[in-house]
Amino acid sequence: MQKVAIFGAAGYGGVELIRLLLAHPGVEITYLAGHTTVDEQLTDLYPSLLGCIDQRIEETSVDRAAAEADLLFSCLPHAVAAELVAEALDSGLRVIDFSADFRLKDASVYEKYYQPHPVPYLLAEAIYGLPELHREEIIPARLVAVPGCYPTGAILALAPAVQAELVEPHGIIVDAKAGVSGAGRSNLTLTTHFAEVNESLRAYNIATHRHGPEIDQELSALGQPVHVTFVPHLTPITRGILTTAYAALGEGILAEQVHGVYTDFYADEPFVQVLPAGQQPATKQVRGSNRGYVGLAVDSEANELIVTSVIDNLIKGLSGTALQCMNLMLGFAETAGLEAPAIWP
Amino acid sequence: MQKVAIFGAAGYGGVELIRLLLAHPGVEITYLAGHTTVDEQLTDLYPSLLGCIDQRIEETSVDRAAAEADLLFSCLPHAVAAELVAEALDSGLRVIDFSADFRLKDASVYEKYYQPHPVPYLLAEAIYGLPELHREEIIPARLVAVPGCYPTGAILALAPAVQAELVEPHGIIVDAKAGVSGAGRSNLTLTTHFAEVNESLRAYNIATHRHGPEIDQELSALGQPVHVTFVPHLTPITRGILTTAYAALGEGILAEQVHGVYTDFYADEPFVQVLPAGQQPATKQVRGSNRGYVGLAVDSEANELIVTSVIDNLIKGLSGTALQCMNLMLGFAETAGLEAPAIWP
Amino acid sequence: MQKVAIFGAAGYGGVELIRLLLAHPGVEITYLAGHTTVDEQLTDLYPSLLGCIDQRIEETSVDRAAAEADLLFSCLPHAVAAELVAEALDSGLRVIDFSADFRLKDASVYEKYYQPHPVPYLLAEAIYGLPELHREEIIPARLVAVPGCYPTGAILALAPAVQAELVEPHGIIVDAKAGVSGAGRSNLTLTTHFAEVNESLRAYNIATHRHGPEIDQELSALGQPVHVTFVPHLTPITRGILTTAYAALGEGILAEQVHGVYTDFYADEPFVQVLPAGQQPATKQVRGSNRGYVGLAVDSEANELIVTSVIDNLIKGLSGTALQCMNLMLGFAETAGLEAPAIWP
Amino acid sequence: MQKVAIFGAAGYGGVELIRLLLAHPGVEITYLAGHTTVDEQLTDLYPSLLGCIDQRIEETSVDRAAAEADLLFSCLPHAVAAELVAEALDSGLRVIDFSADFRLKDASVYEKYYQPHPVPYLLAEAIYGLPELHREEIIPARLVAVPGCYPTGAILALAPAVQAELVEPHGIIVDAKAGVSGAGRSNLTLTTHFAEVNESLRAYNIATHRHGPEIDQELSALGQPVHVTFVPHLTPITRGILTTAYAALGEGILAEQVHGVYTDFYADEPFVQVLPAGQQPATKQVRGSNRGYVGLAVDSEANELIVTSVIDNLIKGLSGTALQCMNLMLGFAETAGLEAPAIWP
Repeated sequence: MQKVAIFGAAGYGGVELIRLLLAHPGVEITYLAGHTTVDEQLTDLYPSLLGCIDQRIEETSVDRAAAEADLLFSCLPHAVAAELVAEALDSGLRVIDFSADFRLKDASVYEKYYQPHPVPYLLAEAIYGLPELHREEIIPARLVAVPGCYPTGAILALAPAVQAELVEPHGIIVDAKAGVSGAGRSNLTLTTHFAEVNESLRAYNIATHRHGPEIDQELSALGQPVHVTFVPHLTPITRGILTTAYAALGEGILAEQVHGVYTDFYADEPFVQVLPAGQQPATKQVRGSNRGYVGLAVDSEANELIVTSVIDNLIKGLSGTALQCMNLMLGFAETAGLEAPAIWP
Repeated sequence: MQKVAIFGAAGYGGVELIRLLLAHPGVEITYLAGHTTVDEQLTDLYPSLLGCIDQRIEETSVDRAAAEADLLFSCLPHAVAAELVAEALDSGLRVIDFSADFRLKDASVYEKYYQPHPVPYLLAEAIYGLPELHREEIIPARLVAVPGCYPTGAILALAPAVQAELVEPHGIIVDAKAGVSGAGRSNLTLTTHFAEVNESLRAYNIATHRHGPEIDQELSALGQPVHVTFVPHLTPITRGILTTAYAALGEGILAEQVHGVYTDFYADEPFVQVLPAGQQPATKQVRGSNRGYVGLAVDSEANELIVTSVIDNLIKGLSGTALQCMNLMLGFAETAGLEAPAIWP
Repeated sequence: MQKVAIFGAAGYGGVELIRLLLAHPGVEITYLAGHTTVDEQLTDLYPSLLGCIDQRIEETSVDRAAAEADLLFSCLPHAVAAELVAEALDSGLRVIDFSADFRLKDASVYEKYYQPHPVPYLLAEAIYGLPELHREEIIPARLVAVPGCYPTGAILALAPAVQAELVEPHGIIVDAKAGVSGAGRSNLTLTTHFAEVNESLRAYNIATHRHGPEIDQELSALGQPVHVTFVPHLTPITRGILTTAYAALGEGILAEQVHGVYTDFYADEPFVQVLPAGQQPATKQVRGSNRGYVGLAVDSEANELIVTSVIDNLIKGLSGTALQCMNLMLGFAETAGLEAPAIWP
Repeated sequence: MQKVAIFGAAGYGGVELIRLLLAHPGVEITYLAGHTTVDEQLTDLYPSLLGCIDQRIEETSVDRAAAEADLLFSCLPHAVAAELVAEALDSGLRVIDFSADFRLKDASVYEKYYQPHPVPYLLAEAIYGLPELHREEIIPARLVAVPGCYPTGAILALAPAVQAELVEPHGIIVDAKAGVSGAGRSNLTLTTHFAEVNESLRAYNIATHRHGPEIDQELSALGQPVHVTFVPHLTPITRGILTTAYAALGEGILAEQVHGVYTDFYADEPFVQVLPAGQQPATKQVRGSNRGYVGLAVDSEANELIVTSVIDNLIKGLSGTALQCMNLMLGFAETAGLEAPAIWP
């Protein structure tokens, strides 16, 4: 059994990681750390785990983590994460970081959307933890940055088309619809209040959301520079992101050709599957699973490609991808602990 | 008191119209007709009206309607509606039709999306019942076709920009998110089953939905020919449509200019309002009301205009607009019976 | 036009009252006061009212209220309300109070569930504002205490049976299921977090909820002393309370007899209706309306009466009943401004 | 690997069983049979299983089942199930039946609630498949009847108190609140229509529901004859049952004593846990898991015991308990394939 520690264990990302790790055959959680929840029994916060785990949240200590574990999951928010991650690396731990602190390669872009970066020298080394794009780099990595949930949905929808230059690099649109759990557990605002959110739909942070530059960075790395118009929407579901991406098809590109490129791109991926022509995925299809599905359509009158993708924002969009990265880093089967299908209905 | 009759009274459109008419100061419902619900007490179908109305559903008869009323609301589905509407007009009734049968001007487009049109000679006369575009024509009309719910949301979002030629006519995208009540009451399918729909998001009928040509027709009538890529989505809310429209801004067009055009366009509209820059509407804001709100944003890096609009699909998207048309046709204040604000939360 | 002022205007109770008052033919809102929201435009907090009202929230001042209005609605929470209400009465205002401060007749019971009562001398004068029980006392009252939402549902379900002594006074059970809006808007906790509440059901405050003694007080006033076992449940709806009440039928009491007593009891009530035998109401039936419906059933094997009642917790359970009291106090038709049926679906 | 066959594989119960079996270490599904879905790929009906299973639904044949499997899960509805189950037993299969056909011991009670029993001679042999009450009988059984979902919740809540005679046998009340998935997938009615169910609560089949006699039978078998007043409610969640049970405490019985009896009763149960005093479970706590939790409270003024229990109606209330029975029958660890905790949020 290999040993892992978790910082920020009591948030939705942390606890979803714990749920997944409980089903993992080769890993033991040796240390759970928190901030506002120190000394609490995890099951008092998450009674869904009653009878499954009997561990308390402890003070956050890099030394303890280094003594107890080989790999650290840092599920802390950005700004809080960066320096602790740097310390952890110095103590010899390998780190999988859930925050936005190590996703962007360019410190000035990070500064524009967040704040001055406290440890910019680590940006070059950090690997963007999307196995579908960076599998080989994740395997030996010391520091992996788990992608944002929206970027995961957007990149899965667009990467094949962008890489194969099937679409124009300009005017690409990502219209994403997400559930409320993306806001986390501790950050209570009117936008998470049931009475305000239920039975309502709303766009927010149009073209200013922090996940936009992540999408641009990863898609641009596949070929020509790409800027997408990114518009997130809040919808009354707990889990799930439906991404609808729009891009102008290159001249003479046919729908069948697009389908072929997508199925080839994902042919060997254990967790991403392209649906047959004419089918579109629903978020319920992935709720509780690490899978993602992609549906393709073409508006031939406008020569526009429409791609929809679905993920569970807390699994393929966060903790599941983190575990998939851990599997790669520690030499487990990539799918270990992640095979469970979605719960339907 | 003026007298109105309703065909198809027991569907969601019919009963919402009845609810609104109950609050109207100058109109009396003299005749409610149905098909599968004949002889049923309306309140047995809709117990929400208990104590508010005491009327039975009767057999559908144009003669009865002509004898009992001055104006007929036909809330029947397409295909069923057309010939009955033609008969009603022949009997001297003015008609407001909820179906798709008289919305499209071109019988061949109608045939492509529905079936051969049974009474194509009426298409030229029928007025597309969106007061924001066709107020003056509605006033004297014999036959008004209530717009589809999706087209209402899309047109409110795009008409000012298209008319003022602020945006490129090509590559316009309408990403619409709707509630389940749009599917009606009697048409039970898996896509209306709570356990299948709740906690799920899904695109459907991408670029093939019947409401697409309606949007194209009305926007094209404002200037240059326009084809929008229309993608509807099913979301787990009962009422409401959030439309997110995307269009490339013309060269040199500034965000402030766009805002000015929109506020001018809707300056005298009693039910449509443009939000201040930076604000986006939520569907909850209009649930239960005849209002629509429009929010504007620009992605300046992509020079892309993003417009969001919200309506209650059963009111501004159907029965409320129908009543607004009736007010125009019968000489009432346009807002009579329609002033109620949305219910929040 | 008579003039009213509102303290605590920006909470859910206040804004629902405002929505109802906007449709009232004889009343004008002259002054809206708040605490944390002072100087905000009401429509910035509640965009559903955009285009319907153009008023700002002002500082809370009893003098201003007395100068501007004849009647004050105090929508403040308990503890905050009591002394301001006392001052308002001293200034000559008549007051309708939304808090729990004047509902209980016995200051020691109040102290047990809340805190020492700051103005206990007013308890004897205050009228419990349920028109179905206290109509004649409300008409001339200076101070009316709006009943709690749970007590309204429970009393409507049980009052006829208790008054007519159809049921044993011991062992009565009130199992109430309520929506999340009852928690208010400003009090953000995990129990209002969409991701925690949605898709979940839970009992809370079993036999310790503050609304229990209110139910006991009002039912006991109808005859023999009654103590109900009161168990509230939180359910994932925004508005509505479904109350299921259980009581042992007296020997020889038949179902038809019960139905007769209930229909007689509510025969002249404008807003409460007993359903035909075998029918049970749904909360959707009252969402957005001031109505309440009562359904009756008997388990003859156990000789147990089961009564279900539904109300919209923010209307018949709060602001609607308050307005109904105002109508009585100011001499309007009791139903003025309250006729709107529920919104379905 | 042991081999199992499934009749009625395409309903919610069948597919949830399949999902659980996919995670079971020692069982292989060799044959999936259906009726209206014959020849369909299971993943076309349940895209959530895409990539997890590649099997078609076949014609229903007892001979095929006997040739392919050692044990048959019959997930057919009552009336359809009975004779097929009888044939399957004759062919040497052991059967776990999901229908109501073999739950009731008394054929006349079955006839009263369903229809004349086609194979009444099997009733004596059939074991009521609730491991918490009948573990030893399930192990060698040929025919196990999976309990109804409501009875599972009610029996878990009441069995310890009834068996230990802590409560009066008269006047027991079971107020159950359930999600919509209990209505199944193929039986589309207005009561499963999202627009009718969402944002609504309703009681139904008061004291006449078919699950009532099951509860009475199992509780009565623990000691004195018991009749409970059973009132089911439909609530807008997909999965879960919250049961609130009420019973008069025997004289002199203290809350601590009750807690002791319950914790002893469930001390060795792998899937049922009693919460500490003062805590109440939420259905979200068990969504997706085979667990059940029980919370206890006493209204000391009324000397009334209140017990709440939560289960996932499709798992502990159906397919999970079926798999637990299979584990007992086939000699696996009782928890095999059933350890997964609930998904939160």
